[in-house]
Order: sequence, then C-alpha cells, then structure tokens
Amino acid sequence: MNYYEESLKLHEQKVGKIEVVSKVAIITKDDLSLAYTPGVAEPCRKIYEDEENVYKYTSKGNLVAVVTDGTAVLGLGDIGPKAGLPVMEGKAILFKEFANVDAFPICLDTKNVDEIVRTVKLISPGFGGINLEDISAPRCFEVEARLKKELDIPVFHDDQHGTAIVVLAGMINALKVVGKKIEDIKVVVNGAGSAGTAISNLLLLSGVKNLIACDKVGILYRGMEKIDDAKTDLAERTNPDNIKGSLADALVGADVFVGVSAPGVVNQDMVRSMNKDSILFAMANPTPEIMPDEAKAAGARIIGTGRSDYPNQVNNVLAFPGIFRGALDVRAREINEEMKIAAAYAIANYIKEDELNENYIIPSALDKKVSKTVSDAIAKAARESGVARI
Amino acid sequence: MNYYEESLKLHEQKVGKIEVVSKVAIITKDDLSLAYTPGVAEPCRKIYEDEENVYKYTSKGNLVAVVTDGTAVLGLGDIGPKAGLPVMEGKAILFKEFANVDAFPICLDTKNVDEIVRTVKLISPGFGGINLEDISAPRCFEVEARLKKELDIPVFHDDQHGTAIVVLAGMINALKVVGKKIEDIKVVVNGAGSAGTAISNLLLLSGVKNLIACDKVGILYRGMEKIDDAKTDLAERTNPDNIKGSLADALVGADVFVGVSAPGVVNQDMVRSMNKDSILFAMANPTPEIMPDEAKAAGARIIGTGRSDYPNQVNNVLAFPGIFRGALDVRAREINEEMKIAAAYAIANYIKEDELNENYIIPSALDKKVSKTVSDAIAKAARESGVARI
Repeated sequence: MNYYEESLKLHEQKVGKIEVVSKVAIITKDDLSLAYTPGVAEPCRKIYEDEENVYKYTSKGNLVAVVTDGTAVLGLGDIGPKAGLPVMEGKAILFKEFANVDAFPICLDTKNVDEIVRTVKLISPGFGGINLEDISAPRCFEVEARLKKELDIPVFHDDQHGTAIVVLAGMINALKVVGKKIEDIKVVVNGAGSAGTAISNLLLLSGVKNLIACDKVGILYRGMEKIDDAKTDLAERTNPDNIKGSLADALVGADVFVGVSAPGVVNQDMVRSMNKDSILFAMANPTPEIMPDEAKAAGARIIGTGRSDYPNQVNNVLAFPGIFRGALDVRAREINEEMKIAAAYAIANYIKEDELNENYIIPSALDKKVSKTVSDAIAKAARESGVARI
Repeated sequence: MNYYEESLKLHEQKVGKIEVVSKVAIITKDDLSLAYTPGVAEPCRKIYEDEENVYKYTSKGNLVAVVTDGTAVLGLGDIGPKAGLPVMEGKAILFKEFANVDAFPICLDTKNVDEIVRTVKLISPGFGGINLEDISAPRCFEVEARLKKELDIPVFHDDQHGTAIVVLAGMINALKVVGKKIEDIKVVVNGAGSAGTAISNLLLLSGVKNLIACDKVGILYRGMEKIDDAKTDLAERTNPDNIKGSLADALVGADVFVGVSAPGVVNQDMVRSMNKDSILFAMANPTPEIMPDEAKAAGARIIGTGRSDYPNQVNNVLAFPGIFRGALDVRAREINEEMKIAAAYAIANYIKEDELNENYIIPSALDKKVSKTVSDAIAKAARESGVARI
C-alpha cells in the first residue's frame, strides 16, 4: 500500500479526522431546557461556588489539549501550525481510540516561548491536561518546564517523554533477554534534541550509570563550545569519563545504542565494535540509523525501530493514551518521574517472561489493552508520589 | 419539572456534554499508518505547499471556537471561565445538533481585551470560525471589532447579533400581522448592553427611522454625561428628536418595545401609553420585563419573550447554527450586515403567510429545519456581498 497516497485520499474523503459530538440528544423542549437555558445555570452556579465542581459537571476532566506550534512536525520540521493539524488530529483520535480521552488540537500561530506559555495558560480552564506536541528543541524544554510550574493540571511533552518511556520499557525487556543489569551497561544516545534528551534523562534516573549522548558533531562533553544550554546541561550529567570523539568512538564497547537521529548514521563496523549481545533502538523515521537485517548480520542481538514492518516497534501510542487516562482518573497535578518510570515498567511487564524474546520486547502498538495497564500504573504512582487529587 | 435540579443531575451523570470522537476507526496497522504516521505526512506536506489545503484535509473548515471570558454568563454575570463552561458546552452541542457544526469551548482566564484578542488570534489556525459568547459590554464590542479586522475567518458575537437577528425576524412578521411598515414605526430598545446595542444597530440598518435606546438611567441622548463610548455612539445614531426622560417617557406612542433588560421594568400603564397594535419583545430571563398576560390585558397585540412556555420565543438557536453552517459552507471571510439581514428574513419567511398570527411570528426553537433555510440565505448573501471564498 502506498501510505502517502492512501492517507491523502482518506483525509480528503473524511475532511479531517475529528468531530465534536453531544452526549445529550436535543429533541424536546425539556432537552433544551436541561442542556442549555434555563437549567444550565445551576451547574454554572455550583462551579462558581466551588471551582472543583468543574470536574463534576463539565467535560474538563476528560479533555486534553494537543498543543503545537508546528515547528517540529514528524520529520518535516517547521511547517507551521496549519500544516501540523493533520498530525494533531491524528494524535487526538489515538487518545480517544486507545484510552477514551477526549483530545482537541490547538495549533498556535507563534513560535515565541512567552506567548506559547501565556496562551496555553489562558486557555487551560477548559482542559484537564496539556499534551505538548512537535515543538522544536530547545524551546520545548522551557515551554514544558514553565507550564508545569504555572499550571495545576498535567503537562506532558510526548515527543520527549512518550518516546523515552517506550524506549525504557523496551530496554528493560531487552536486558532481561540478554541477561545484563541496567547499572552495568554502557548506553549511547545519538540525537540530543527533545527525544534524545528525555531518553537520556529517564535512563539515568532508571539506573544507567554510563551514558554518552551524541549530536551531529559527535560526543557531548563538559567544556564543549557552541552548544545550547540544554546540551551543556546534558553533558554535565552524562559521559562520566568525559571522552571526546565521534559516534563511532562512543559506540566502542557499548551495550545499547539509542538513535533518534538520521537514516544510516550507524554502519556495520560500528555495530561490530559494540559489546557482545548488543541492543539497538534505531528510531530514525522512516529509515532507521541502521536497517535491522544489517545490524543483526553485524552481530547485534536485539533491534527495535520506529517501523511497524519490523519487530519491536517503539511507538508512543503504547504510552501517552494510558498515561493521560491514569493522570486524569486520579486528577493528578502533574506527570512526574515516578509516574513515567512506572509507565515504562507497566509496558515492559505487559509481556510475560515466557513470551519474551529477541523479537518481542515491546507490545504491539495496536494492542489497546496496554493502555489499561499503563493507566493503572500511572494512577498508583500518582497516589504514591502525592500528586493525585482524588 | 424543576429544570435546575434536573439539569444538575444530567450534568453530573454525563460529566459534561461534549466528546471529541474519531471519524476513522483505528484497528489495523494500515489504519494507524494512514490516520497517523507515516501516511499523515502527506496531507501535512500538501498544506505546507498551499495553506488553503487545510480546508481539504483537516476538520478546520467545520470547526468553530466558542470563546468566552466568563464575564457575562446568562443572567449570572461575571462568574469566570470555569463556571461558564457548562454554557459553552451547551452552545457547542446546539451547533452540532442543529447544523452539524463542530464547536469547541475555549474558556479564557483573562478579562483583558488585548489578551483575549491575541489569544484568539494565536489559536485561530485550527478553527474555521469564532463564536464569541458571554463577554461583557463594552469590552465585547472592541474584542469583536479587532478580531474581525485581524482574522480572515468569520467572527460573530452571538449575544449581540444572534439575538438581534431573531428579534428582527420576529418584528418583520409582527409588522405583517399588524399591517405596519418598518419605516413608519417607533421602536424603544431597553437595555444598552451587547444585545441592546446590536439590536438597535440591526433595526436601524433594516429601515427603522425612529428608535430610542434606554439604559438603567433612562433614554440615551446626545450630550449625556457619564456614559461609555459605546453608549455615546449609540446615542449619536438613535433618538432623532433627542428627547430625554425615563423608559416610560420613551414608550409613549411607541409601536414596538424591545427589552433586554430586567424583570418587571414595564408596567401596564406603560403598555397603555403605546401606540395601537403594540408589539413587545420582553426578553429578560427568566422573568420578562412584563408577563405576556399582563401586557395583553393592557392592550398589547403581540408579545415575544425568551421563554419556551409562551408563544413567540426569541431563541438564538434559530440563528447561530445556520449562520455558521452557511458561512463555513462558502468559506466566508466574515459575517457581514447583509448576511445578518438575510438570516433574519430567512427566519421570518420560514413561516408561511397563511400560518402567521399573533402567537406565531417566530418559528419553534426546536425546528431543526430552520437552520437549513438560514444557512442557504447566509451562503447566498455571502456570495452576493463578495465575502465567500468558494
């Protein structure tokens, strides 16, 4: 199937993918009087008396804004808020189809961080959560950090944390298969944008001691010049021996490669230089950093990609629907690190030990039952970490 | 039925009235690849190449933002954006149920005009139209005027123009029943907030020559002190003889009373002082300026109210769904005066001449066929006035 051609047809035929429907039929005079005036005045009054009642009488508690400025849409880059709309609508329907979360695209006509933060804050009364999407690094870090501070509803940049959570889940299972421990491994993350940074952070938090981050110019190290604050900060917390060099240098003796970078940047020699039983997450889209067959031929033991036509697809849809479902269910004030790690373990443990193998370390992206196990884990972690409000 | 109590139950049971659903099922790998990655990249690219394609491949063209700051919600006043949400959700479902327009509530946490204008502008890429709602006067005038200037999609403050259109429709029919001509009548509009001002403007534009506007302190006249700019402007264009005095003074010899003011401010003596075959639109909610029975007993010929339990209910739902339906259908750049007048005549002419009588000058608010006749009229007027883009 030619996905591009068929997708275009589908979008044209449907004229967009979302619809805002009523939960209440309006046929009789009474219907109108209860759903609208005069009856509607009463829930309004109750919310005015106590703001928390907004969760009782409105859709807020199940509504997530999918917010973008259109600056980092898929691999297409800065195509603007209108051209990003098909992706945001796609995200919205995945929220609904996988976890019954109502999600609505908000495409912003500004790239200014202050304006993005202010706008999201101003529209937040009607939403129970904010999913940031396809906002380019390093602005995405500041947008998320400021919104997390200013809002009392969950704010989550999926390109960062969704990907990080699924990679961690895959890595937990891959390490079980090869019999290595997280604290002993050397990990190389290639690509220090939003996803690469979040993956590095989450792996460090999960027990990885030796992690080297690379960007286009090579290994990030302390003392490096001409890099932005986010990368300087990342260099501070990674690369314990502060080595310098290229991606190829970094990979020598590595146990795990995580690529959120560009097609073909890893070759078979690099794979051969890695440690025994090497694990690669080669997630450049649509063409991975190295094709699975090539990597295997060079000695890699386990390969994950972003593609659905190879085993072990790293797909955010395993994470974000269940994460917001769980966060909304307990009215979490935020989605914290404990909740992210709990989500990763929930995804990993969804696969029973006796089913686990090289080609099955990550559940199928189409398995809608995953979101339930994730939402349960998120709700529990929210309660235990004290951010649940109910 | 106790509407307040039952409405509260309904809202609690449904936990809000809107839902964001998918037009596309996501079951198979292909479903995911077409609605989301990798296929979705293609509609994105097409929109990036030509922005107008956003109407072809996304939901934008059928999506209306219902925007409020919660400052003038129903008769409840400034209750804030969260407490206003049940009304905005109600509005959204009426859009869907009456005209298949997808509408989404945007409740803003600011009362600052600059911020409201800026925020709506920044979120506008995803919407095909903006319905302003329950924003208090005189700020609503500036918000609407500035957004109309800055956006190329329809911006419509329903509290102003929706009400004005339905009142004009009712007046057109009432004048047919009593056999008077619009250019000969004297009209008194009581209440010079958003609705009163818009009604006055539309009636003047439709041929009324003698119109007197009153607010709480009485007749608006030129040279009056301590009134805001909007009222000064209204006084400039009304009250041809520049008379001063109370509402009672204004009503002497009037043919039509239009009340968007407060319960009970018109008494039977005032009605008796009006011209023969007087027409009253007493729309204060829930209790009219004068009850229909009292007004009739004092000699009034035709009475309309905002209530569904009396004949001739002035209900905006007769106007706004069809207005946006028509405007979206022809991708109108704006909703101009020609379109508003066309909508009023469409509503009026929906009632056949032989069905017209004192108790039936306005179609039933529940008659969903009205929106079709309104949308046709709106589309035609948009084309004829040169604001249709397709």
